[in-house]
Amino acid sequence: MRILGIDCGTEHTGYGLIESDGRSHRMITAGSIDTSPRQPLEVRLLVIAQGLREVIQAHTPESAAVEEVFYAQNVKTALKLSHARGVVLLTMAEAGLSVGEYSPLEIKTSVVGYGRAEKQQVKLMVHSLLALETRIDSEDACDAIAVAICHATHTSTELRLRATR
Amino acid sequence: MRILGIDCGTEHTGYGLIESDGRSHRMITAGSIDTSPRQPLEVRLLVIAQGLREVIQAHTPESAAVEEVFYAQNVKTALKLSHARGVVLLTMAEAGLSVGEYSPLEIKTSVVGYGRAEKQQVKLMVHSLLALETRIDSEDACDAIAVAICHATHTSTELRLRATR
Repeated sequence: MRILGIDCGTEHTGYGLIESDGRSHRMITAGSIDTSPRQPLEVRLLVIAQGLREVIQAHTPESAAVEEVFYAQNVKTALKLSHARGVVLLTMAEAGLSVGEYSPLEIKTSVVGYGRAEKQQVKLMVHSLLALETRIDSEDACDAIAVAICHATHTSTELRLRATR
Repeated sequence: MRILGIDCGTEHTGYGLIESDGRSHRMITAGSIDTSPRQPLEVRLLVIAQGLREVIQAHTPESAAVEEVFYAQNVKTALKLSHARGVVLLTMAEAGLSVGEYSPLEIKTSVVGYGRAEKQQVKLMVHSLLALETRIDSEDACDAIAVAICHATHTSTELRLRATR
């Protein structure tokens, strides 16, 4: 299955596309769509939407996944992020993609095996699980791949459970 | 000037389009784009974007305005609203419209002359300012028109000030 994971943000929206059978994963593409704080919010949202549409058009994912919003630290940041997240979800719906949503805990547990893992550990495990030879520098791209891996694992477990019923 | 005011919301997105010289206003169209809580969020966002695109295409506004987000009452609601607001801003940017943003205080002051006005007073003044013969039932449409009137007043004041400099 070809899964697009997205790490939403107004400044950096990470994306990671993997091909996966739920156990082994292969990276197809990953990167980050960046906007400038000097641009008006609506222009930044347009840059994000256009960037994602290009990724979807070029790589035709079959499903998508994003992180749930959480606002433990800063409500203002969470509100801004939700604007970008709304645009990301819209872009997925326009492409006819179903969207999985996962908590940071689920994502970290799925990738590192430990829900309170540090960002660095997630990065390491993403590189290891995908057997990457070249390093991905963007933290946002790594986080996006982690979301995609989480979705791959969950979807395949669900399918296996359904098959045994 | 032809101004599109929008009252963002995941369940009801009100819109109101007016023609205005900053002093007298004429309504062109108003209504509400409604979604069902039973639909996934991304589908609701798609309904909102498509609805607004139709309004823009049919009535070609020259500028747009929305309310600022505030989260005094409920953060969860504000986060959800921000998803819709992100999609609304994107739709404006796609149409090449500049977007004015106003606080509830500015909008109420502009329409009622009093920043702490009740919803009902805003509704009454909207009907009065536009000399409406038919009643607008949707509160969201009324709020959207109020945003448009606020933008019209602010823009024309700004233009007048610039002209006298």
